[in-house]
Amino acid sequence: MPKTSTCTALDESGENLAAAPGSRRQFIRLDGTLSQPGVVGAPLATANAAGPSTPGEGLFDLGTFVLRSGATLREAKLAFKTHGRLNADKSNAIVYPTPYSAHHSDIEWPIGAGKALDPEKYFIIVPDMLGNGLSSSPSNTPPPYDRARFPNVTIQDNVAAQHRLVTQGFGISRIALVVGWSMGAQQTLQWAASHPDMVARIAPFCGTARTTPHNLVFLEGIKAALTTDAAWMDGWYEKQPSRGIRAFARVYAGWGLSQPFYKQEQYRQLGFSSLEDFLIGFWEHRFLRRDANNLLAMLWTWQHNDLGTTPGCDGNLEQALGSIRAKALVMAGETDLYFTPQDIDYEASHIAGATFRVISSVWGHQAGNGLNAVDSTFIDDSVKGLLAS
Amino acid sequence: MPKTSTCTALDESGENLAAAPGSRRQFIRLDGTLSQPGVVGAPLATANAAGPSTPGEGLFDLGTFVLRSGATLREAKLAFKTHGRLNADKSNAIVYPTPYSAHHSDIEWPIGAGKALDPEKYFIIVPDMLGNGLSSSPSNTPPPYDRARFPNVTIQDNVAAQHRLVTQGFGISRIALVVGWSMGAQQTLQWAASHPDMVARIAPFCGTARTTPHNLVFLEGIKAALTTDAAWMDGWYEKQPSRGIRAFARVYAGWGLSQPFYKQEQYRQLGFSSLEDFLIGFWEHRFLRRDANNLLAMLWTWQHNDLGTTPGCDGNLEQALGSIRAKALVMAGETDLYFTPQDIDYEASHIAGATFRVISSVWGHQAGNGLNAVDSTFIDDSVKGLLAS
Repeated sequence: MPKTSTCTALDESGENLAAAPGSRRQFIRLDGTLSQPGVVGAPLATANAAGPSTPGEGLFDLGTFVLRSGATLREAKLAFKTHGRLNADKSNAIVYPTPYSAHHSDIEWPIGAGKALDPEKYFIIVPDMLGNGLSSSPSNTPPPYDRARFPNVTIQDNVAAQHRLVTQGFGISRIALVVGWSMGAQQTLQWAASHPDMVARIAPFCGTARTTPHNLVFLEGIKAALTTDAAWMDGWYEKQPSRGIRAFARVYAGWGLSQPFYKQEQYRQLGFSSLEDFLIGFWEHRFLRRDANNLLAMLWTWQHNDLGTTPGCDGNLEQALGSIRAKALVMAGETDLYFTPQDIDYEASHIAGATFRVISSVWGHQAGNGLNAVDSTFIDDSVKGLLAS
Repeated sequence: MPKTSTCTALDESGENLAAAPGSRRQFIRLDGTLSQPGVVGAPLATANAAGPSTPGEGLFDLGTFVLRSGATLREAKLAFKTHGRLNADKSNAIVYPTPYSAHHSDIEWPIGAGKALDPEKYFIIVPDMLGNGLSSSPSNTPPPYDRARFPNVTIQDNVAAQHRLVTQGFGISRIALVVGWSMGAQQTLQWAASHPDMVARIAPFCGTARTTPHNLVFLEGIKAALTTDAAWMDGWYEKQPSRGIRAFARVYAGWGLSQPFYKQEQYRQLGFSSLEDFLIGFWEHRFLRRDANNLLAMLWTWQHNDLGTTPGCDGNLEQALGSIRAKALVMAGETDLYFTPQDIDYEASHIAGATFRVISSVWGHQAGNGLNAVDSTFIDDSVKGLLAS
C-alpha cells in the first residue's frame, strides 16, 4: 500500500529562479534568429501554438538561473524541440525530457502519427537536459563558468528550467503527460513531485526517483575510466580525451544491456557484425559524439538524483513519491542492470494508484531506447492506455 | 539431461610440455632454499608427504614450458602452498587453484580443522595461477619474455603446469577433489575434462567452463580503464600505473557484488564505514597490491577460457562437459553478475550426474570469496557432502 503523504513545497511555482526584476527573456530559434522577444512572465511561443504541426527547435532564454546549490548560470539556455500544435485551451501538452547524453533528436522513436506521442493530437515538448551540449553545458557556457567550472546541476534544476519554458514560454498551466526514459524518468518523477497539481499523468520508464548505491558505483566506474585519461587534464583539455571516452563507453557497454542480450548476439539486429563491432560502432560512437565535461556534468546530475530532496519532503523518498497526484504508469526493463525492476517496483508501490509494468526483454536498460520493436510496442501501447484513461 | 560424449585427448597426460630430455626440475622453498632437487618424472616432494601437517610454500620448476599457443616460458615456475600431509597411498589429495589476481594466501578461508578442506584428513595443494605474481608472470619473468612480452596463457596451460606438479612433484595419480572459486572453478572444470580418470570429484563454484560474451565485455571495460592511464606505457612502465589500477578497481566494484548488497550496505560487515571507504579500502586496495601486466595477463586467460577447446572436444563446450567423469557439485551465486546462475546451471546440466546448487546471497560474485559467513558455511557444507559421497 502506498503511504499517503504530502510534501509542502517551499514556493508555489516550484522554481528556484531568482530572476532579476525585468530581466529579458528571449525565445530564439536554434538557427540564431529571434522568433519572439519577451519579458519574464509573458507567454512567448504563441507562434508555435498557432503554427502548423511541424517540428520546431528552440532555445529558451532562462536568463540568470540560480541553481538549488546557490550557484548561478547566467544567460542560461534551455534547448528543446516541439512536435505538433498546442490546442486552443492548451490542454494537449506532453513533456518528454531527454535522458543521459542524448539530444532531443535522439529520442524521437515514440513520436509519430498513430503512436502514443501523436503530433496530430498532442503538443509534445522535448526539453534538452542541462549539460547535454544543447542546453547550457560545460561545452557552450562562456567563461568563467565554462568547462571544468560548470556548476553542478540537479534534476530539480532541470525541472525548474523546463517549468519556466512550459509556463512562461508556452503559457501552459496543465500538462497531459510527462514521460521519459532513464534520466528522462527521473525528470518525469520530479515534475510530478514538484508540480502535483500541474501534471495529469506520468509515464516514467527504466528510471528511479533516487539513484541507488549500486547505480552510483556503476557511474563511479565510467567516471574513473574517463578521467584516468591524462588528456582529460582535469577538464581543461583543448582536445577531447578520446581514449578516456572510449574506455568510458567500453565500461558502459557491459551495463547498458544484459547478459542474455550478449549471449544471443542481439546486436546483430542493429546491424553490427560482431561483438567488437558493437562495442566500437554503437558504444564508442555514441559517446565520442559528446564532450567529456558534458558527460561528467550529466553524470553528476544522475549520481545526485534524489526525489526525497524535493522541498518540503524532508529528505524522505517515500513521502515524495506519496505526494505525487498524477495518474502514474511506471515501467521497468526486466533485465535492466542499474535501474532494476525491484528498485522501480518498490518506488512505484509508494505512488498512489500507480500501475507497474515490466518490459519483458533481454535488452536490459536499452529496452526503453526504441531499439527493439517488441519492447517499443509494449511501451507505446502502455502509454496509449495511460493517455486514454 | 546431460549429453553423453567423450573428448579424445591428443595425448595421454593431457600436458603440453615439451620438456628437454633430462632437464632438471627443482622443488624450491619460496624462501630460496632448495628442498629437494630432482629430474623430470621423479616424485620430488616426499619430504612434504612424510612431514608434519604444517603448511608449506613451494616453487616448482617447470623448466621449458611450451604453451598451447606455441610460445615457450623458459625456466617457468609454479608457486604453490600445501596444507596437511599426503597419506601413504596418496589418495587424500585435494587441488584448490587460485582465482583471478589472488595469491594462495588469499583464499585459505575454506581450509582448516573441521572444515571441508581439513588438513588433518587431506593433503591440500593450492597452486598459484600463472600470471599471479608468484608463479611465472610478467612481473617476475626475466627478459626477453618479461612484462609486456609475457606470452598469453590459457586455463589449459595452468592445468598442464599443475598436473606436472601433482604427478611429477608429488607422485599423485588420483585426486580426491579439485575445487575452486571463479577462475579457480575454470581450472577445476578443466582438470576434470583434461584428466577424467584422475579426478574423483570436482566442486567448481561461481565460475563457468566458457567465458560468456557479457563476461568478456565486463573484462573489456576494466581492461580499458587500466590501459587508458598513460603511465601504463603499453606495459613498459617502470612504476605501476596506479591511477589506471584504481580505475580498474572502481569499475570492478560494480560487477563484483550485487545491487542489493550495496543497497543494504553489507560492506559495513567487513568494517568499511561508507561506500567510498569500501571502494578505496577494499577494491582499490585489492588491486593496487598487484602488477598491472599481471592483472592484464590473467585477464587474457579469463577472456579466452573455453573448455570446448580441450583437445579432442572439437570446440564443443557441451561435449567437453559431457566428457567429465568426476562426481560434480556445481555452485553459483544467486546474484552473481558475471558468472550468472543461469549460465552455470546450463553448463552443469551437461555434466553427467552433476548436482547444481545456488548460494542464496546478495554478495554477488563475492559470495564465493569467504567474506560472508552464511555463504561460506553453505559452500563448506556442500563440499563436505561431496567429499563424503
